[in-house]
Amino acid sequence: MIWFEDIEIGRKTELGSYTFTADEIKRFARQFDPQPFHLDEEAAKQSHFGGLAASGWHTASVFMKLQSRRINEIGSDVRKSGPSPGYKNLRWLKPVLAGDTLTYSTEITSKRALATRPQWGIVFLQVRAVNQRDEPVFEFESSVLFARRETQKA
Amino acid sequence: MIWFEDIEIGRKTELGSYTFTADEIKRFARQFDPQPFHLDEEAAKQSHFGGLAASGWHTASVFMKLQSRRINEIGSDVRKSGPSPGYKNLRWLKPVLAGDTLTYSTEITSKRALATRPQWGIVFLQVRAVNQRDEPVFEFESSVLFARRETQKA
Repeated sequence: MIWFEDIEIGRKTELGSYTFTADEIKRFARQFDPQPFHLDEEAAKQSHFGGLAASGWHTASVFMKLQSRRINEIGSDVRKSGPSPGYKNLRWLKPVLAGDTLTYSTEITSKRALATRPQWGIVFLQVRAVNQRDEPVFEFESSVLFARRETQKA
Repeated sequence: MIWFEDIEIGRKTELGSYTFTADEIKRFARQFDPQPFHLDEEAAKQSHFGGLAASGWHTASVFMKLQSRRINEIGSDVRKSGPSPGYKNLRWLKPVLAGDTLTYSTEITSKRALATRPQWGIVFLQVRAVNQRDEPVFEFESSVLFARRETQKA
C-alpha cells in the first residue's frame, strides 16, 4: 500500500482511457439522469450538446472506475484507507458525446500532515480528462486522506 | 418550462427521498467504484466507514436522479435547457450506510444575467442531503444556465 510519506508532489499518473458508447450513456442516464439529451439521439441533436451526450455524473463516475481499478492494482489495506474531505471546482468543459474516448489523469499538487489527526495526512490532486482530440473535457480538484506510516502501529 | 426570470432567490425545493439498499450500493460499486468498503460487509466493518457504505459518486448520482425526475415533471424544452458551468465544494460529511434514507433539497442562492451570452442567465443553488436522523451527509454548490425569456425568440 501507499502511505502518506510515499506521495510525491508533482507526480502525474495516467489512469487509462474509456470510450462512452451510446448504450453506456443511455444505461447510466436511465438509472440516474433521464433527461432527453442523455437518452435520445434526435432530442439530443436539438439540445445545446448537439448530439447524444453523457451525463456529467457519468463522466465523473468513470474517473472513479479507473481510479479504483488502480487502487486495487496497487493493493490497499482497507483499515488504512482514508475518506475524502471533499472535491472542489468540478467543471465539464466540453460535451462528452457518444463514441468519444476520454483519457483520465491525476497530478499530485500538494500534501500536508493533519495536526489534529496525526494518523492521517491530506493529499490534493488535480484530476483531468481529455478526449480523443486532446481537448480538456472534465476536471476537478480532489483531496483524500492517506494513513501516515510514522504515526501508525503495524 | 421555467425561465431565468421565473427563478426566485431563496426558494427551497425538497426533491424527495431515496433509500440506499445494500444491493444498490454494491451494484453501483461494481460498475464504478469497486473498493472493498462499497462491495463487502465484512471488509467495510474494518474500514473507517464502519459498515457497507455508498460510493460518494453514488450519493451524488442519486441527487441527479431526483433532480432530473423533477425537471421532467415540470417539463422542459430541450432546445432551451442549459449546461452547468460547474459545481463547487462537494462534501461528503458522513458515511451513507446500507439502509440509510437520504432526503435531498436545493436552495436558490443567487442568479445573474450573462453579459456575454444574453440568451442565458446563471443560477446558483446549494444542494443538500440529510439522512433519516436529519444529519447533513452531502452537499455541494451547483450552477446551471437557464434560458432568458426576454432575449429569446418564441
